[in-house]
Amino acid sequence: MDQARIADLRRTYRDGLLEDTLPFWIEHCVDREFGGFMMSLDRDGSVIDTDKGVWQQARFTWLLGELYNNVERRGEWLELAMHGASFLDNHCFDPTDGRMWFHVTRQGEPIRKRRYAFSECFAAIAYGELYQATGNSEFADKATNAFERFVQHNLAPQGVQPKFTDVRPTKSLGFPMMTIVTAQELRGAIDFPQANEWIERSIQTIERDFLKPDLQCVMETVGQGGQILDHFDGRLLNPGHAIEGAWFIMHEGHLRGRRDWVSLGCQMLDWSWHRGWDAEYGGILYFVDMRGLPVQEYWHDMKFWWPQNEAIIATLLAYHLTGEAKYAHWHQLAHDWAYQHFPDPEKGEWYGYLHRDGRLSSRLKGNLWKGPFHMPRMQLNCWKILDQMQLR
Amino acid sequence: MDQARIADLRRTYRDGLLEDTLPFWIEHCVDREFGGFMMSLDRDGSVIDTDKGVWQQARFTWLLGELYNNVERRGEWLELAMHGASFLDNHCFDPTDGRMWFHVTRQGEPIRKRRYAFSECFAAIAYGELYQATGNSEFADKATNAFERFVQHNLAPQGVQPKFTDVRPTKSLGFPMMTIVTAQELRGAIDFPQANEWIERSIQTIERDFLKPDLQCVMETVGQGGQILDHFDGRLLNPGHAIEGAWFIMHEGHLRGRRDWVSLGCQMLDWSWHRGWDAEYGGILYFVDMRGLPVQEYWHDMKFWWPQNEAIIATLLAYHLTGEAKYAHWHQLAHDWAYQHFPDPEKGEWYGYLHRDGRLSSRLKGNLWKGPFHMPRMQLNCWKILDQMQLR
Repeated sequence: MDQARIADLRRTYRDGLLEDTLPFWIEHCVDREFGGFMMSLDRDGSVIDTDKGVWQQARFTWLLGELYNNVERRGEWLELAMHGASFLDNHCFDPTDGRMWFHVTRQGEPIRKRRYAFSECFAAIAYGELYQATGNSEFADKATNAFERFVQHNLAPQGVQPKFTDVRPTKSLGFPMMTIVTAQELRGAIDFPQANEWIERSIQTIERDFLKPDLQCVMETVGQGGQILDHFDGRLLNPGHAIEGAWFIMHEGHLRGRRDWVSLGCQMLDWSWHRGWDAEYGGILYFVDMRGLPVQEYWHDMKFWWPQNEAIIATLLAYHLTGEAKYAHWHQLAHDWAYQHFPDPEKGEWYGYLHRDGRLSSRLKGNLWKGPFHMPRMQLNCWKILDQMQLR
Repeated sequence: MDQARIADLRRTYRDGLLEDTLPFWIEHCVDREFGGFMMSLDRDGSVIDTDKGVWQQARFTWLLGELYNNVERRGEWLELAMHGASFLDNHCFDPTDGRMWFHVTRQGEPIRKRRYAFSECFAAIAYGELYQATGNSEFADKATNAFERFVQHNLAPQGVQPKFTDVRPTKSLGFPMMTIVTAQELRGAIDFPQANEWIERSIQTIERDFLKPDLQCVMETVGQGGQILDHFDGRLLNPGHAIEGAWFIMHEGHLRGRRDWVSLGCQMLDWSWHRGWDAEYGGILYFVDMRGLPVQEYWHDMKFWWPQNEAIIATLLAYHLTGEAKYAHWHQLAHDWAYQHFPDPEKGEWYGYLHRDGRLSSRLKGNLWKGPFHMPRMQLNCWKILDQMQLR
């Protein structure tokens, strides 16, 4: 990757973040009447559902704080982050058990809580940024509490009926992955003392139970002891998700000087790239079966925005950390395909949902699942990686 | 529709049922070792997941009994229906609360129970056919019990955590629809005394709360009082589902001499056809938004097998009952598109999951959701409707 390409990519990510993604959301999603953010946006940014997803409230709050802390001390970003945190505080926790909701009305009345506790991860990192931005220790306490609730609920759920019986107990890649990235964020933001311990334990779990060298793949769901469950759900691979986990681990290896973790992350990327990259049409497929059998999920062959975001980060970081030419090549493939198919130059931001061949499936710009998170995180991370590469 | 076309269609449905659909499933799905049926089949009928969906156990049992009672007294069909009923009896009820499971292992150990109680509907009609076939009153009792559990659980769920809070209470078209068809089946099979009352009440509910003349559509989900909920879930229309409900009601109108119900069913069909028929590519779309806005479900524009099956029945029945030429035209559109795209002439049966333009999305022949039900029910119903038409 030559310096001209690096400078060009850096401009694409940086300008995309600051001049497209961020203005699109700030212009359209801020609810000045009831607080928080309305993220269910049509192509042109018009609100088509006033309900609020708790993940997206917390994620946008995190992003704004992250930008304030790491890019520029813009008052608007801090004000909006505080606006998001107020809505979290006032409407996103269930006072009866302290757990967080998943979906609330515009006014903040609860609609749905999930069995799992990922809202808590996103709240933790949002509060962490606000501590870093303001020095107010209440935010650090809230961040710690949210993280602890996340891990406690995942390790020993209380007060929820499990989705499955205990006949075939499973565990998912999502929990150790989210533990890693949340602990990484809190280590940076609030100097969270248990961060390294949680991260090490989670990397060990992933390596021991989810990586299958004989099959050359990263499992999404395994038995409690890491065994493969030869059923639809057990064989289901989510390559974009494993690629996201890959760069969390590479990043940790880089920060901590653990080359073995960099290699582990690269291994996860390599296997998942071979499983998930669509050699026929380009882009990362959503789901594939471990043995190439049909998948039960209907959208298995669609191209969602976020696996492409994660693949762009992971390949660029792998190239940065190893210098291997194949990663520069994969980065170019992933970047070029995504930028050819997802952006909406007329109305801004990216579409989220394409068919396998890159045709548009939905013109939605946001919903309970898509908001200002994977895209701007990719833009910010890649910009910062490219800054490092320019310095070499 | 001339007599040659009628004879040709009759042959297509009858021969398809008896020489393709039924042999495909009987050859591949019967589990002689552990009982019941393994329905997760690859294109060629090979079992790719040994788990058993309770809906499919009960539905195939119903189909076999229905054929034994109404087509031919073949010993194989009765034996297989008894085989299915044994598995239901032995493995598909939770002894702790009497409710049915949704998903069990090959050996019949429980994996999952759903919050709702549709397994009970399918068990009710399966047991009903076995009473009709054998005269054994235990089957009639089991059918009645399963129906009562279905309606009781839907009206006042016990022992389940609701998916949503009570902030925005909703109700779904599925409950009154399934009540109608289950009561219709039990009236025929066990002379169920409350059948007419349940059917009348359910038709009233659908007409009062789910039909929206100003919008010309049949809602899938409304508020408890029938109000429109202007959110993703509230605006979500499932035209194939409403078309299925349409023919249940037309059929009831025909049986009971209620022309107003025939008209009501035709109205539901007309609106849902205009909403769901894909004028660009053909076929019935899975989901559309009431106001033409983007839909949050990812597979909204796919073509699944079952909405086509339901549209083929509903249009043929509407034509039979009204003689209106548009219904013959719609039937031809629906029939021709489906028969051009779904059948697998090489390995048998239909594919289940196509992209909007008719290209194959998955080569699966069966899973927790797709089994021998919508297709053979269409084949049997259309064959019998065409028999009536030949007699005229």
